[in-house]
Amino acid sequence: MASKTYEQFIAYNQEARLLHGIQSLLDWDQETYMPKRGADTRARHLSLVAGLMHERRSSDELGNMIATLEKEAPEDPVEAADLRVARRDFDRAVKLPTDLVKRIAEAQSRGKTAWIEARAESDFSKFAPHLQTLMDLRREMADKLGWTTEPYDALMDEYEPGAKAAEVQAVFDALRPELVALVQATQDAPRQPDLSILKRSCPVELQKTFNEQIARAIGFDFDAGRIDISVHPFCTETSMNDVRLTTRYDEHYMPMSLFGIMHEAGHGMYEQGLPSERFGSPACASVSLGIHESQSRLWENQVGRSRPFWERFYGDLQKTFTSLADVSLDDWYFAINNVRPSLIRVEADEVTYGLHIMLRFDLERQMMQGKLAVADVPQAWNDAMQSGLGVTPPNDREGCLQDVHWSLGIFGYFPTYQLGNIFAAQFFDKARQDLGNLDDQIRRGEFAPLLGWLRENIHVHGRRFDSNELVERVTGNKVSHEPYVAALNAKFKPLYGLA
Amino acid sequence: MASKTYEQFIAYNQEARLLHGIQSLLDWDQETYMPKRGADTRARHLSLVAGLMHERRSSDELGNMIATLEKEAPEDPVEAADLRVARRDFDRAVKLPTDLVKRIAEAQSRGKTAWIEARAESDFSKFAPHLQTLMDLRREMADKLGWTTEPYDALMDEYEPGAKAAEVQAVFDALRPELVALVQATQDAPRQPDLSILKRSCPVELQKTFNEQIARAIGFDFDAGRIDISVHPFCTETSMNDVRLTTRYDEHYMPMSLFGIMHEAGHGMYEQGLPSERFGSPACASVSLGIHESQSRLWENQVGRSRPFWERFYGDLQKTFTSLADVSLDDWYFAINNVRPSLIRVEADEVTYGLHIMLRFDLERQMMQGKLAVADVPQAWNDAMQSGLGVTPPNDREGCLQDVHWSLGIFGYFPTYQLGNIFAAQFFDKARQDLGNLDDQIRRGEFAPLLGWLRENIHVHGRRFDSNELVERVTGNKVSHEPYVAALNAKFKPLYGLA
Repeated sequence: MASKTYEQFIAYNQEARLLHGIQSLLDWDQETYMPKRGADTRARHLSLVAGLMHERRSSDELGNMIATLEKEAPEDPVEAADLRVARRDFDRAVKLPTDLVKRIAEAQSRGKTAWIEARAESDFSKFAPHLQTLMDLRREMADKLGWTTEPYDALMDEYEPGAKAAEVQAVFDALRPELVALVQATQDAPRQPDLSILKRSCPVELQKTFNEQIARAIGFDFDAGRIDISVHPFCTETSMNDVRLTTRYDEHYMPMSLFGIMHEAGHGMYEQGLPSERFGSPACASVSLGIHESQSRLWENQVGRSRPFWERFYGDLQKTFTSLADVSLDDWYFAINNVRPSLIRVEADEVTYGLHIMLRFDLERQMMQGKLAVADVPQAWNDAMQSGLGVTPPNDREGCLQDVHWSLGIFGYFPTYQLGNIFAAQFFDKARQDLGNLDDQIRRGEFAPLLGWLRENIHVHGRRFDSNELVERVTGNKVSHEPYVAALNAKFKPLYGLA
Repeated sequence: MASKTYEQFIAYNQEARLLHGIQSLLDWDQETYMPKRGADTRARHLSLVAGLMHERRSSDELGNMIATLEKEAPEDPVEAADLRVARRDFDRAVKLPTDLVKRIAEAQSRGKTAWIEARAESDFSKFAPHLQTLMDLRREMADKLGWTTEPYDALMDEYEPGAKAAEVQAVFDALRPELVALVQATQDAPRQPDLSILKRSCPVELQKTFNEQIARAIGFDFDAGRIDISVHPFCTETSMNDVRLTTRYDEHYMPMSLFGIMHEAGHGMYEQGLPSERFGSPACASVSLGIHESQSRLWENQVGRSRPFWERFYGDLQKTFTSLADVSLDDWYFAINNVRPSLIRVEADEVTYGLHIMLRFDLERQMMQGKLAVADVPQAWNDAMQSGLGVTPPNDREGCLQDVHWSLGIFGYFPTYQLGNIFAAQFFDKARQDLGNLDDQIRRGEFAPLLGWLRENIHVHGRRFDSNELVERVTGNKVSHEPYVAALNAKFKPLYGLA
């Protein structure tokens, strides 16, 4: 039976969670519906809420409750997990002055507005001063939080608790030659997909309908969520009962919204899978961004880009988009799994994707260490694209202005995307072992067993285990990039007719 | 030059204004896009924000700033107005415990959700317990605020500062026989409009486009606003730079959305006309709901239902809605100005509209005095409709469940609608005198002079003058229902071929 202090502690945390939900709605609205001139006030709304949240998260009142509960040492594992993560969050929060938190929130909102304009006009100079401000603020934040090896560690810790840049570097160093080799092999292969079929006209209104059908089929709950349009696709939520996905549409490139929605629905189903009765408890949240991304990539790639999935849905797709009537399932399946160095991360294939991440990881670490000046970012980006992927962006819109993250001063987030791919491969292998013939289930459009497995093994635990612990607990193995590499080779080599 | 305390006082008020904007967005989202299961958390968001706002509005810190400024006695009339309205708001706020304010906010959000469901199913019993709770809470609020003659006065004071139920009753008593006589005369007239033309098919997508064109033409700024869909049309704003209108569409009754948007745009242009540089100052807000309604009714009726307006736009309308190709301007003009007792207030004509208001005013006063029980509301409504308008609702959806107000526990708001009609007539007469040939301007689609006149005479002052003072200052006359009655007779008698 929970103590009185524990109950008060939960109620207190719920208020912070409510404020966080309000912040999410303000953000969501800014990117979807807010009229242009609302931007200035919105920055002030966000700064105000960030300040209120931070005051609550770093208050003596909370510190005292945590200390009291630590003395009580709850035996219940869920309560113990609440206490453990609350201690971690509190110790982090008290290091940050409210004023800094509010300045960051305001700079983020203004940065995002400037980025949208700069991106639309492909004019980095309009965004540069905001990036400088955000970098300076994040560097100040890293120093307040404290770091040993490099400031980047302090920032990454917010997104992937416990991760260190040097360790991530080691994983990426091991992965890079594997990816480069596979990219090279596919580019040299005699068998190549016909990508023109992906550019056939697919009316936007029909894309919307089809995407909703797919999202519903895999288990996204529209009574507790919705889909809108934004410049940069994202998933946010005000609670597990109100989860918002966004995407963007191109009549002449339908896979962008289709796989975008499967990706965001993967995030969304993780949020919808958190236990509603524990809303606002400290441990009732996602483990880390890496684990979050494992959910989105699993649904987007392991499910959405699999042959069994299209054995079920390709007929529906052809019925919806008559321009694909003469395209065979095999040609479609090959086209959506084409490997090709390209400019845009969110549209990159499964193999080159990691190389996009490594580029960003390198550049933002250099920025944070003062080794790369803001003014030099476009050139450094283009150079790194050329050396890493063999392509050079024709403009900044398709280069260093493509992602939203830096407009929010978010540094240390990108590597979690690649960690997500690695976790996803490990989880999917284990699900396949546990669920019997998973391919058959997918072929029949039965996603409840897989979603149920994810709910039970991952979602329901919230932050009870950290990411390494969770992977080990669920799969019986330590985190490793090997299953990921094995899965890529097993899928792409046969597709490209390689040994 | 403003004192240091005055500057702090403004900054303090800006924070409360930002919270109010956040509240508006939470409300707007609840009525437009929020998924169904988000309702419970949303009620808690709104309660939390209401509590934070109320704490700021009733704090000792604010009380001390106001007292200090009163001693300084600022000479600047704008500063003096800020101080005057801040004192009024503060004295009112300190009477209300934060807990009551939070309970009301939560009950409102839940009440609205229940009302939407009850209305959809036309089942009053689903809404009744919420109405009871809201009534009880408002009665408690009235008692805390204090009242002399009846509790209704304390509530109405929030919407129309200084108004008293007995005085409103006197105005309505004088007005009722005039309206009844005109209704009777039009119903008995041999010349009658062909209303079937209003029901011709007009595709919803085209309605959206046409409405936006009209809203833009009269001066609504879409860089600082937008239009969405909701069950009950409304206008809300997070600042003068972010004003949200909503409407609802019926393919077979296009005037609903068209005049709905002109109405809401009238509200919206008032908000957009408040001085941006004074955002968050206490007097930088609308005077009262009556004055607000005068702006919406002026654009909806005096402009939007005038013959000169349609001399300019009827060709465009016919081009957009081909189903109207064979309808003459005269027939259209007569049809949109038909007088006919009907069930739904927001679709009522200019003449019967006041009778709908009087009914609501009577019923809610009785409820507040404990003379009418919640369970008896549907019957009392239907009886009053029959005796006042000669029609009986076939169900509660078209009866006592039609309006959103009671779902928010808003009592004392309805009479301001009729005051708005009265103010609008006085303002429009004066604008006509000042602007020269206003009809010609409207006929040419030139709305800038009229909007400029409203900006300069009404919008820019915010709350500097109360409603009676403002009417007198602008028109040179005291508030009177006579210009309103005169305008109705001058318009409708010739239309119906009456002497």
